[in-house]
Amino acid sequence: MNYKMLRYITGQLLIVECLLMFLSLIVSLVYGEFANLEAFIIPMAAMLIIGLLFSLKKPENKTLKVKDGFVIVGLSWIVLSFFGCLPFVISGLIPNFIDAFFETVSGFTTTGSSVLSASDFDKLWAPASAELGMRGVFFWRSFTNWIGGMGVLVFVLAIMPQQDMKSSRLVHVMRAEMPGPKVDKIVATVRKTAAIMYAIYVVMTAAQVVLLLFGGMDLYESLCTSFSTAGTGGFAVWSDSMVSFGGTVAHPNFCIWVIGIFMFLFSINFNLYFLVLTGKIAAALFSEELRWFVGIVLASTAIVTANLYSVYGNISDSVRQAFFQVSTVISTTGFATDDFNLWPNISKTLLLILMFIGACAGSTGGGIKVSRLIIAVKGTWAEIRRMVRPREIKKVFFEKKAVEGDTVKGTFAYIVAYCFIFFASFLFISLIDGQNIETSFSSVAACINNIGPGLGEVGPASNYAFYSPISKIVLSLDMLLGRLEIFPLIFLFSPSVWREK
Amino acid sequence: MNYKMLRYITGQLLIVECLLMFLSLIVSLVYGEFANLEAFIIPMAAMLIIGLLFSLKKPENKTLKVKDGFVIVGLSWIVLSFFGCLPFVISGLIPNFIDAFFETVSGFTTTGSSVLSASDFDKLWAPASAELGMRGVFFWRSFTNWIGGMGVLVFVLAIMPQQDMKSSRLVHVMRAEMPGPKVDKIVATVRKTAAIMYAIYVVMTAAQVVLLLFGGMDLYESLCTSFSTAGTGGFAVWSDSMVSFGGTVAHPNFCIWVIGIFMFLFSINFNLYFLVLTGKIAAALFSEELRWFVGIVLASTAIVTANLYSVYGNISDSVRQAFFQVSTVISTTGFATDDFNLWPNISKTLLLILMFIGACAGSTGGGIKVSRLIIAVKGTWAEIRRMVRPREIKKVFFEKKAVEGDTVKGTFAYIVAYCFIFFASFLFISLIDGQNIETSFSSVAACINNIGPGLGEVGPASNYAFYSPISKIVLSLDMLLGRLEIFPLIFLFSPSVWREK
Repeated sequence: MNYKMLRYITGQLLIVECLLMFLSLIVSLVYGEFANLEAFIIPMAAMLIIGLLFSLKKPENKTLKVKDGFVIVGLSWIVLSFFGCLPFVISGLIPNFIDAFFETVSGFTTTGSSVLSASDFDKLWAPASAELGMRGVFFWRSFTNWIGGMGVLVFVLAIMPQQDMKSSRLVHVMRAEMPGPKVDKIVATVRKTAAIMYAIYVVMTAAQVVLLLFGGMDLYESLCTSFSTAGTGGFAVWSDSMVSFGGTVAHPNFCIWVIGIFMFLFSINFNLYFLVLTGKIAAALFSEELRWFVGIVLASTAIVTANLYSVYGNISDSVRQAFFQVSTVISTTGFATDDFNLWPNISKTLLLILMFIGACAGSTGGGIKVSRLIIAVKGTWAEIRRMVRPREIKKVFFEKKAVEGDTVKGTFAYIVAYCFIFFASFLFISLIDGQNIETSFSSVAACINNIGPGLGEVGPASNYAFYSPISKIVLSLDMLLGRLEIFPLIFLFSPSVWREK
Repeated sequence: MNYKMLRYITGQLLIVECLLMFLSLIVSLVYGEFANLEAFIIPMAAMLIIGLLFSLKKPENKTLKVKDGFVIVGLSWIVLSFFGCLPFVISGLIPNFIDAFFETVSGFTTTGSSVLSASDFDKLWAPASAELGMRGVFFWRSFTNWIGGMGVLVFVLAIMPQQDMKSSRLVHVMRAEMPGPKVDKIVATVRKTAAIMYAIYVVMTAAQVVLLLFGGMDLYESLCTSFSTAGTGGFAVWSDSMVSFGGTVAHPNFCIWVIGIFMFLFSINFNLYFLVLTGKIAAALFSEELRWFVGIVLASTAIVTANLYSVYGNISDSVRQAFFQVSTVISTTGFATDDFNLWPNISKTLLLILMFIGACAGSTGGGIKVSRLIIAVKGTWAEIRRMVRPREIKKVFFEKKAVEGDTVKGTFAYIVAYCFIFFASFLFISLIDGQNIETSFSSVAACINNIGPGLGEVGPASNYAFYSPISKIVLSLDMLLGRLEIFPLIFLFSPSVWREK
């Protein structure tokens, strides 16, 4: 383990988090929430001091091994959430530390599971005054979704000075943080790749902000909603998510379509947008993962629409609700325009299965990922062929390229590890909290796949506040395991990693 | 594909099934159910004629490829179930062919899912007369559990004349039919191995019959119950399974312990019994799989006992119910001494998870198998190590031996294929029948793991009759996929297999 590099990057990370939090401080100032400013000033001061101390001395040896990349990413996300939850605690919005930590991990991992009840949202919309006035804090809450969507270390890499990036091994940091079975630089350097990704992310977010303003949202609502959409996080600024839009938005159905479409767009591999930008539109459109993803979304929307027709009684409401809900679940965002807990069984089951499939690799979405599932299916088929024809070498092709044997094995191992973590968590929270199977199962599904609301007691109309602290910690770990795709976190708990010099 | 060998073995199989059905005919005769004799005579005549025609000419080329072994096993089980369901149809116990096929597949695959309602069991216990009197048919029902437990082709191999077995490739047939990630001959020849396995099976079944007679069952009840226990099938001769034992058994609690312990014993790898018989007791006791299996059973029993104390209010009832239910679920038998649908959530969740773990390889139990899970976990860990230390070769050790890389990859592929089939079936039956998530999910879990009763609408107090015919066919396929461990059936649907000469 390169401890010096770990210290240095953690320092940089804290400074960046301090700067990001500064935006929320400004929002608080704009709304005159002077009583709550310390909710930001105290953690910002702490992050700045520790950050500067940690990055004072640049390490000479900047080499990072694969393992170091994993550990740095895993640890960074925990540090990030630790400091990121302080505004919730200090402002009194979520006074309990474990609850605030759960909410913050949920934010950064773009899960969107919340412990907030309807009365907590009253504080957001109340006039700014001594105790109330939480627009700054809620802005931070939505902003964590945006930060976590693209990954914070990728951001650090994007803004780091060139001379700090000599080692090509920094690609391991990016790989560990970005979702998908195989992540590669799209341009020559990690720094440029990260910068391009972030530029696409910013522009798309801005486009959504503008469209939502047209839909009748004010700037605050539009910004917060777009942050949570872009990160496929799902924190809303209304207690009922998007069921009524607080009753103040002029064109709610237009907004539902905008959000629905942007959730879909943010679930697509960002490399494809880069291909489009560089004129390779055909290559982007013929992406195997994209075609499967679009096919699944269309088929699911058709089935749910047909199933919902009995609920809404007209085709336009049914299509809008169906597409929005399919998009919110497969993108792993978790917004709600209706309590799908009350929908027919067919739609509920289909949505539950979409939770596991998840978005495309290289997007901001979670879940197992479409590409990983394609590779797993093809790999399984190749393995079955090998059983009966041991001498024939059958390669797995994905996106018209042969997939390396190690990637296939890694994908298998990922799915097996995923299943084990899933069932262990499911059993654990059942033993601790004794909720019914639907609630426990979907709680873990919603957390490990970074969705947010589940079914039963954790449906869109409820929240996770009732869970015991220990279950909240387990579910927080599930969110981190899901967002960082398991392996970085596992190394944190491996003593051998820390022993090595 | 060696078509001639396929024909020949199918012929042998039909003759064997005819002989096995002869036992049920005798039971019918003993009870004087003369009106129902044709329920056996007609299918027996059909099997005998087709069987003799098919095995008239011995194939010269007896070579079997791996693939041929798979296909023969897959097809045999379907043929077996096709003829095996005729007594139910002809006797009028289950007049609908698809229902009868479902019941028979459920029997042979030792699942124990039933379409029979309480009123159908009245026919069993009614006095023998023209329309009623179904003791012979119910005997056949329980006997299918026993036949399927050890595997019918293994039986064919065990009784085939030595000169028909020249090809050492017959081991592929055994491998395809016997559960577990890797099956090997325990003695020099396949035939002898099969014979030893069957001998152990018969002796253990006989021991249980005797003990249940001591418990107050009559010979018929004791035989049928032991058959279903030995195969870990779970068809009972009472409509409420083992809740009341029909009210006629003198020592029900003693019987519950006997059945509970025997379900546990039949879930252990039969190779270990062979080791014990040959004096290698220490080697048997130190089996890695056995230690894990015993550990899981003990831990689960302890948790369920603690959880059930609130239901039963005394320790002896709680321990007995807990051990029986853990044993029935992990052995994938599916007997019930209580409606666990009404138990607390903690116990229900734990039992649901045990359904997936299943028994040991080389036993009569189903599920994913303990050894397969151990290899998968170790393989995943090795894969994670390889990610960070690509040059280090990390072998997977199981039962103190290095596991071949192909076996690890095969195990991964198995689990991935299992998950896909599981979720596809879950989605399919939801779309068709629209049951709630608990019911649909546990129906598939109970069928693919060969357990029988699930939760919700398919709980121990209900049955599968309400499902649509198409869902019944899907669930029948799930049972076959579970029992034959997926791959043999997949090859049946691969056109390339049939094209090759």
